[in-house]
Amino acid sequence: MQTLNVALGERSYPIHVGSGLLTDPRWFAALAPARRAAVVTNTTVGPLYLARLRQTLEALGIACVEIVIPDGEAFKNWETLHRIFDALLTHRCERSTPILALGGGVVGDIAGFAAATYQRGVPFYQVPTTLLAQVDSSVGGKTAINHPLGKNMIGAFYQPGAVIADTDTLGTLPERELKAGMAEVIKYGLIRDAEFFDWLEANMERLLARDDEMLGFAIVRSCANKAQIVAADEREAGVRALLNLGHTFGHAIETGLGYGEWLHGEAVAAGTVLAAEVSARLGLLPREHLERLVALYRRAGLPTRAPDLGTERYLALMGHDKKVQEGKIRFVLLKRIGEAFVSADVPQAVLAQAFAACCGDG
Amino acid sequence: MQTLNVALGERSYPIHVGSGLLTDPRWFAALAPARRAAVVTNTTVGPLYLARLRQTLEALGIACVEIVIPDGEAFKNWETLHRIFDALLTHRCERSTPILALGGGVVGDIAGFAAATYQRGVPFYQVPTTLLAQVDSSVGGKTAINHPLGKNMIGAFYQPGAVIADTDTLGTLPERELKAGMAEVIKYGLIRDAEFFDWLEANMERLLARDDEMLGFAIVRSCANKAQIVAADEREAGVRALLNLGHTFGHAIETGLGYGEWLHGEAVAAGTVLAAEVSARLGLLPREHLERLVALYRRAGLPTRAPDLGTERYLALMGHDKKVQEGKIRFVLLKRIGEAFVSADVPQAVLAQAFAACCGDG
Repeated sequence: MQTLNVALGERSYPIHVGSGLLTDPRWFAALAPARRAAVVTNTTVGPLYLARLRQTLEALGIACVEIVIPDGEAFKNWETLHRIFDALLTHRCERSTPILALGGGVVGDIAGFAAATYQRGVPFYQVPTTLLAQVDSSVGGKTAINHPLGKNMIGAFYQPGAVIADTDTLGTLPERELKAGMAEVIKYGLIRDAEFFDWLEANMERLLARDDEMLGFAIVRSCANKAQIVAADEREAGVRALLNLGHTFGHAIETGLGYGEWLHGEAVAAGTVLAAEVSARLGLLPREHLERLVALYRRAGLPTRAPDLGTERYLALMGHDKKVQEGKIRFVLLKRIGEAFVSADVPQAVLAQAFAACCGDG
Repeated sequence: MQTLNVALGERSYPIHVGSGLLTDPRWFAALAPARRAAVVTNTTVGPLYLARLRQTLEALGIACVEIVIPDGEAFKNWETLHRIFDALLTHRCERSTPILALGGGVVGDIAGFAAATYQRGVPFYQVPTTLLAQVDSSVGGKTAINHPLGKNMIGAFYQPGAVIADTDTLGTLPERELKAGMAEVIKYGLIRDAEFFDWLEANMERLLARDDEMLGFAIVRSCANKAQIVAADEREAGVRALLNLGHTFGHAIETGLGYGEWLHGEAVAAGTVLAAEVSARLGLLPREHLERLVALYRRAGLPTRAPDLGTERYLALMGHDKKVQEGKIRFVLLKRIGEAFVSADVPQAVLAQAFAACCGDG
């Protein structure tokens, strides 16, 4: 078991990572003044882990209001959010009633947005059960729902009171989801932690085989990177934007294909290859670095080619990106493995070339 | 012209109050790095003041995206919020594009919530055009929409960059709205400013006759009270709850009758009489203070009797109040004119007596 801290002054909070946390009341003791808590989960994770969490909370004298939403990115929308609010109100959840998100990125994002806005904000706890949520989305306070015109367009910065990541839950994670989560793990190596990238190259197969110790290390190292970035730039005025490597292209893929068609991590992998291709074409990233990252994605079972939506459609979709400034799309590009930066000066011709090189069946 | 400050550290902002502010680019200069701004207004205020504001912004080189919503509390809901998001996305408003609320409390609350959540938060400016918005709702960062089960149930604390209150706009305010705004003015006298209450007793008729100097004084004094309370307790952990005097009953009236049937200020007036009646019945408030406040509401043309919804229905509606803690409704009560406090110990029998005494045509 390891505990990291996200240093945000009065909004600081711990990230607990380890085995068996879900059944250990200690990690949930911070909720204890509350006599009730609302647990938001989905139809896949609920049957697996909700009873376990409920029992742990009941041991602390906390009764559970259970809110089960459908599984998948396609449901991270208004309709599901309304259902959560209806349930919270029907069960007379109060301003002091904590909301727990038990699940992956979708559950964390939508439950977090509900917590940020129900009665103008209630206590919130992340209990991530997927690799992607444990290494990335549960940390840092980004909450959101999707809009038909753009991913994560409506949301809030709202920090949790704690992140409680029980690595045992990865045992039931579908293969495809494990691989998708690996895209965000690799991201930390690419943007700021070359040593971690080397380690991932040395250990990818053991990670995919779910070696406990390896996964634990990768999760803690990822969270440590994320915690540092978030502490330096909570509301993404600067360095935090680097965490969006591959995400401008990736969000366009997700929105363009329809939410849920590709998993978020898959879209990020293909999107990062596009960002790297742009970087290489601009003479910023040595080709051999591009090849190394493509090779690692392949070993992780991640897509390295984006769907062929066409340059026009990609540009239209990316025009809704949250990093757009004065009509200019700002891209996270790579200088080398371990160093990323933001650029608003990518000529359209270079984008078109990158799409031609990296889209479709190839 | 007077400028007050809401002291909230890095979230501090000015409140400008005076005549002719809408046409003076100085007060909007803080927006100037932006080349575009989205102005949310309604079908009543838009035709009166949108052109004026547009011209002022254009003088600063800022183009206007105009978003006009229907007028009234009944439209402070999901549907209207969606329309605002659709418009922001369709016009490709960016994370740096400010949103201005030009209108009364409904426009300010919903535009503020849109600003708090569009792309996880964009710059926001309040340009209140009603007395109620100028003295109360535009200051302090409370934003929200209504839910069929409870008023202001979904929202966020999100401070504006400035409040720009042009008192000239009160010239076109319907009589009924002016009176409704007076309920929130009187509230400051009741909860913490007995001297102001005396002044209101001495000057109510001149205020209702829209004497410029009188109104200006009342607005500045109200904002000064509000700014002090908000600075002391931004997120309503303590003293800020006193601003809800009459609001627990008032919100029940608004929700129970259907949003928009009574104006918010009207419901607050009748709700405050209920709170005062409860206070008197508990032996906390001298009867002569209750009579003074009823008399002042009457002179202000405000209702002093609540609709007869029945005790059962009132209790059910108030059970959704944001101040409920562990199932107990917390009421703001009065000790005397100028001093309020929060109590969770109001026996149901006393509530029933107060409803019997203060509801219906009497």
